[in-house]
Amino acid sequence: MNQSQPNIGRKTSEHGDARPRVVIIGGGFGGLNAAKALAKAPVDVCVIDRTNHHLFQPLLYQVATAGLSPGDIAYPIRSILASQPNVRVVMGDVKRIDRERRLAVLDGDVEPYDYLIVAAGTEANYFGHDDWAKRSPTLKDIHDALAMRRRLFAAYEAAERAKDPEKIDALLTFVIVGAGPTGVELAGSIREIAERVMRRDFRRIRPESTRVVLLDMAPRVLPAFPEKLSAKTEDALKRLGVEVRLGTKVEDITDEGVRTDRETIRAANVFWTAGVRASRLAENFGVELDRGGRVPVNEDLTIPGDPRVFVIGDMARFEYGGRLLPGMAPVAIQQGRHAAANAERAARGEPMRPFVFKDRGQMATIGRGRAVADIFGLRLAGRVAWFVWLFVHIWQLIGFRNKISVLTDWAYAYISFRRSARLIL
Amino acid sequence: MNQSQPNIGRKTSEHGDARPRVVIIGGGFGGLNAAKALAKAPVDVCVIDRTNHHLFQPLLYQVATAGLSPGDIAYPIRSILASQPNVRVVMGDVKRIDRERRLAVLDGDVEPYDYLIVAAGTEANYFGHDDWAKRSPTLKDIHDALAMRRRLFAAYEAAERAKDPEKIDALLTFVIVGAGPTGVELAGSIREIAERVMRRDFRRIRPESTRVVLLDMAPRVLPAFPEKLSAKTEDALKRLGVEVRLGTKVEDITDEGVRTDRETIRAANVFWTAGVRASRLAENFGVELDRGGRVPVNEDLTIPGDPRVFVIGDMARFEYGGRLLPGMAPVAIQQGRHAAANAERAARGEPMRPFVFKDRGQMATIGRGRAVADIFGLRLAGRVAWFVWLFVHIWQLIGFRNKISVLTDWAYAYISFRRSARLIL
Repeated sequence: MNQSQPNIGRKTSEHGDARPRVVIIGGGFGGLNAAKALAKAPVDVCVIDRTNHHLFQPLLYQVATAGLSPGDIAYPIRSILASQPNVRVVMGDVKRIDRERRLAVLDGDVEPYDYLIVAAGTEANYFGHDDWAKRSPTLKDIHDALAMRRRLFAAYEAAERAKDPEKIDALLTFVIVGAGPTGVELAGSIREIAERVMRRDFRRIRPESTRVVLLDMAPRVLPAFPEKLSAKTEDALKRLGVEVRLGTKVEDITDEGVRTDRETIRAANVFWTAGVRASRLAENFGVELDRGGRVPVNEDLTIPGDPRVFVIGDMARFEYGGRLLPGMAPVAIQQGRHAAANAERAARGEPMRPFVFKDRGQMATIGRGRAVADIFGLRLAGRVAWFVWLFVHIWQLIGFRNKISVLTDWAYAYISFRRSARLIL
Repeated sequence: MNQSQPNIGRKTSEHGDARPRVVIIGGGFGGLNAAKALAKAPVDVCVIDRTNHHLFQPLLYQVATAGLSPGDIAYPIRSILASQPNVRVVMGDVKRIDRERRLAVLDGDVEPYDYLIVAAGTEANYFGHDDWAKRSPTLKDIHDALAMRRRLFAAYEAAERAKDPEKIDALLTFVIVGAGPTGVELAGSIREIAERVMRRDFRRIRPESTRVVLLDMAPRVLPAFPEKLSAKTEDALKRLGVEVRLGTKVEDITDEGVRTDRETIRAANVFWTAGVRASRLAENFGVELDRGGRVPVNEDLTIPGDPRVFVIGDMARFEYGGRLLPGMAPVAIQQGRHAAANAERAARGEPMRPFVFKDRGQMATIGRGRAVADIFGLRLAGRVAWFVWLFVHIWQLIGFRNKISVLTDWAYAYISFRRSARLIL
């Protein structure tokens, strides 16, 4: 355009001024809510994320099973925070934290902080078997979801072309390790797609005979839920045709499939939803981490020995009311807001306050019209729970357009039994 | 599921029976319409495509500029043809054609044919400079579109972090080589995004000063359109802030930018929409190809010397009414239907008929509310043309859900000036 106007200058924010700087690492539920809570605070905020988007992780399995498009559950962090003039967004990778000089060290430059809120989340935990990662992909980000989708639909394409019946059986067998919410949702969705969507599209194979095996070492599915809901979930999964194997230990994952302590399951695809480990950034704080790599934090969410650094969300180990808070969105959201408020208090010279968790419950969906919920003291199962689940998830989705688009997709999928986003990319 | 039911068998189509086999290579506009036209023909049809989806290519630039999601303009070929029991769909790559034994040779197996319809389309043509492909990506499929989108939005992210003003200028300069419909649509969209979408999301850079340079050797933009519409298009592009350089030859594309016969333009991103070349499958037919690698076909769309092989769409060179038919969807659609009808006639022992092209015109969009159209003898420009363009494109989109979703996205973008699918993947 007009080349006499330089590309830099006019909008440069007042750096070097007297306002305290709050650096937030991670644009997930925790980081984003921390940034929003600082909208009117007299501080300069910098949000750093490796990607350019906030991801609505609870619906990631829907992208993996082609019920939703990536754009439906992800939204640019910049746009979400565009109306907050005191926030700058940086797309970059934080390599380490220099607590002495108060710097977040990125790939290429640094961001100085007065207060640091670390909300970098988790990655998949293969419990010492990192070599399984290649054969058993996980579901943590959009890339994972698209890779899983590609494997899922490519398996049917390959089966349709294959001649060897054993090979076809292996291609149409999916093993899911880990019966938490993601594993349960994934297992239910795959059986449902096989039964309702793929069935009529193929000529040689019989997609409806797809085997889905859900494995866990725990004695029940959804171990974080009340026992009664676990039992209902297991029933619903079985009615969908999912084979549930509990109290089962995975001993090896190979190109052939899975070997457990009881049997060998031949499967071309094994998906891993068995556990997570906190981001490696947790190693920067000079405190002993727990088995999941999480940072034990003080009551005010700061780390022991450094009142300028907060660790929140899935990265933090926080005991509350005698139990460990689970790695779920509501915890991260509330901790994000609280850490922001505490940083603001500290900047004003006021004392910080201890974090108080308001538990509103948990939900998981199992398939078309089925869910379990344990919310506001109610234990729901079946269609009512599913509508509650639908409502809560669409409500929380960021951005008006995403809400419309997700509703359209779901309504369409519900009416037509089709999948809208069934692309192999 | 029930393991006593084998995964193979029940649905196997009657191979080896007496019905003639029609193999169609390519699930684009040509191939898909050929398959549909054979719905009631007494033949067995096999559609082979490298991907699992039909792509609505005219809207690919919208995916590249984050106006649409990939799932909005792509639809599984299997689903489109699911209701035609005489069609089998194979996801695979045809390596060559053995015309003596009448086989399409795939990666791994073969498909025998009695009649072959080749509709494999085109790839980018760098006119002997294949080394430019890496630095100057093109826009032919979903992968290209997502790669272009990543480069586009990542450039702004990198510019926001950069310190060197020259580097920032290069990052905010986009050169588009080729002023055909794709180049024009892309150039207009990028300026529009810069002006309306990115503007408020950045703090340090000024996205509204983004330079978009549209280069072509031809003396006017949209050379396939009437001169008057070319002039209107050029005006509209200039009003959007696009720098149009016509009669300009690209001499080199480097990491620094583009060197033309007149100047050097420093740019981090150069996009190539300057030309196409027919699929390499064209080399299988023992006929001399034209400069664009296209196969000269007979009046009935068969290739010279082999009445069992049809070549259609962008791969075919067909002169009609004294001019060469352009590589556009309407030509491919009509040729697909005609080749199918001719194959059916031949299978019945009837004579084939010559192809007759019904020209309904051409359209291109330049930006928000602006388009040019030359249809049904009318030459339209501006808002009316844009609504016609919108209507025709949504109408042609395959799948009810895609129509709804595209309409929602566009309505939203139009009202809010946002882009819904702005993910860097």
